[in-house]
Amino acid sequence: MLTNAEIKRIKSLKEKKFRDEYGQFAVEGEKLVEEALCSGFRVSAVYRAEEVGEDAMSRMSSMSSPSPVLAVVDKPAPKGLVLERGLYLGLDAVRDPGNMGTIIRLADWFGISTVFASQDCVEVFNPKVVQASMGSIFRVDVVYCDLPDICRRFRSMDMPVYGTFLNGENMYSQTLADEGLIIMGNEASGISPEVGALASTRLLIPSYARNGRGAESLNVATACAIVLSEFRRR
Amino acid sequence: MLTNAEIKRIKSLKEKKFRDEYGQFAVEGEKLVEEALCSGFRVSAVYRAEEVGEDAMSRMSSMSSPSPVLAVVDKPAPKGLVLERGLYLGLDAVRDPGNMGTIIRLADWFGISTVFASQDCVEVFNPKVVQASMGSIFRVDVVYCDLPDICRRFRSMDMPVYGTFLNGENMYSQTLADEGLIIMGNEASGISPEVGALASTRLLIPSYARNGRGAESLNVATACAIVLSEFRRR
Repeated sequence: MLTNAEIKRIKSLKEKKFRDEYGQFAVEGEKLVEEALCSGFRVSAVYRAEEVGEDAMSRMSSMSSPSPVLAVVDKPAPKGLVLERGLYLGLDAVRDPGNMGTIIRLADWFGISTVFASQDCVEVFNPKVVQASMGSIFRVDVVYCDLPDICRRFRSMDMPVYGTFLNGENMYSQTLADEGLIIMGNEASGISPEVGALASTRLLIPSYARNGRGAESLNVATACAIVLSEFRRR
Repeated sequence: MLTNAEIKRIKSLKEKKFRDEYGQFAVEGEKLVEEALCSGFRVSAVYRAEEVGEDAMSRMSSMSSPSPVLAVVDKPAPKGLVLERGLYLGLDAVRDPGNMGTIIRLADWFGISTVFASQDCVEVFNPKVVQASMGSIFRVDVVYCDLPDICRRFRSMDMPVYGTFLNGENMYSQTLADEGLIIMGNEASGISPEVGALASTRLLIPSYARNGRGAESLNVATACAIVLSEFRRR
């Protein structure tokens, strides 16, 4: 039988403060719980509606319609970073959980093993990020870091740092390496000046709007999709 | 002075039933209201917090934090469709308002003037679609239609119908025309069998995950971004 205190504790995991305090996060839904169980993550408990009751499920859930199953998962210990040559993604202040989760799912699809995120990105174990990632958070490492510092490490290893800018150069006619760091910026303000100054190549996704009156910009997750597709196609 | 009845009427526009009844929809935020005013749409009223008060704004708003300005806009009359040669997008049961709005913003960026949507797609004047489109709903025509019928019209004009399928053929090595209809499917079930049978080319966005254990699929808006970018790049 679940106690009220335990239900409250699980419910509290929707807030970063409590995820940090307990070192855990919650995942909901058959598919995500199954992915958690098959992953290298430690699952500390699984609750099913038919065992604990629908009332308890809806009190634990962070979703508007609670799912029939919820797992409590231990956050993995941060890994020491050995930077190998390869293609990586860097996120500069991506704040929207839906965008963050979608980008992690994209990284997973395009074989990017590690995503570097600035400290002011939304946390990867936020329930909306977990949901939007469709389980990809269990396969892609998201490393919160000092992003300018990481850019300098790439440059010092002679790996390019690519940034996407509205005043960059047409991506389709640029040389794109099969290693380096691809930076995507904040939803409203793009890449910060400090990180932007460390980019070795400035990429633009060209617009094909007629009469110069199309959309002013692209959503960060869709821009990321286009850039990753173009790097992998080459 | 705004009456209670008027506030209630405006608030009711967040529901499709009342948008249909009044032939209007609401847009919120400085940028969107400005786009509405510069568009060919008829704006019937604009309300600002400094004029009507913050209390009235928050009672009219469909957002969690109401914006300082809201406009009521007339829905445009459906246009008669003359199908010219060119590149179009077709949406088969896209249900999520965020995906719908993001796809319309993509169409705008990539110069797609008309999007054909099956009748069971989310309505384009839903407040979340309007918001996610970032104003692109004022520039891109979304035509609700019988999608199989539209596919047949493209085929009868010798224009290709492209569908994206998880068991399609690698998109990067296919011939892509600069005219035709590109179909994106439902978030969970993809393209319906009836529409799928009318596709002349089945496209796959290849995964680059290692060891065959990456994400199972892509979000429909990110897949749409990748496909439109590849068509326009050619």
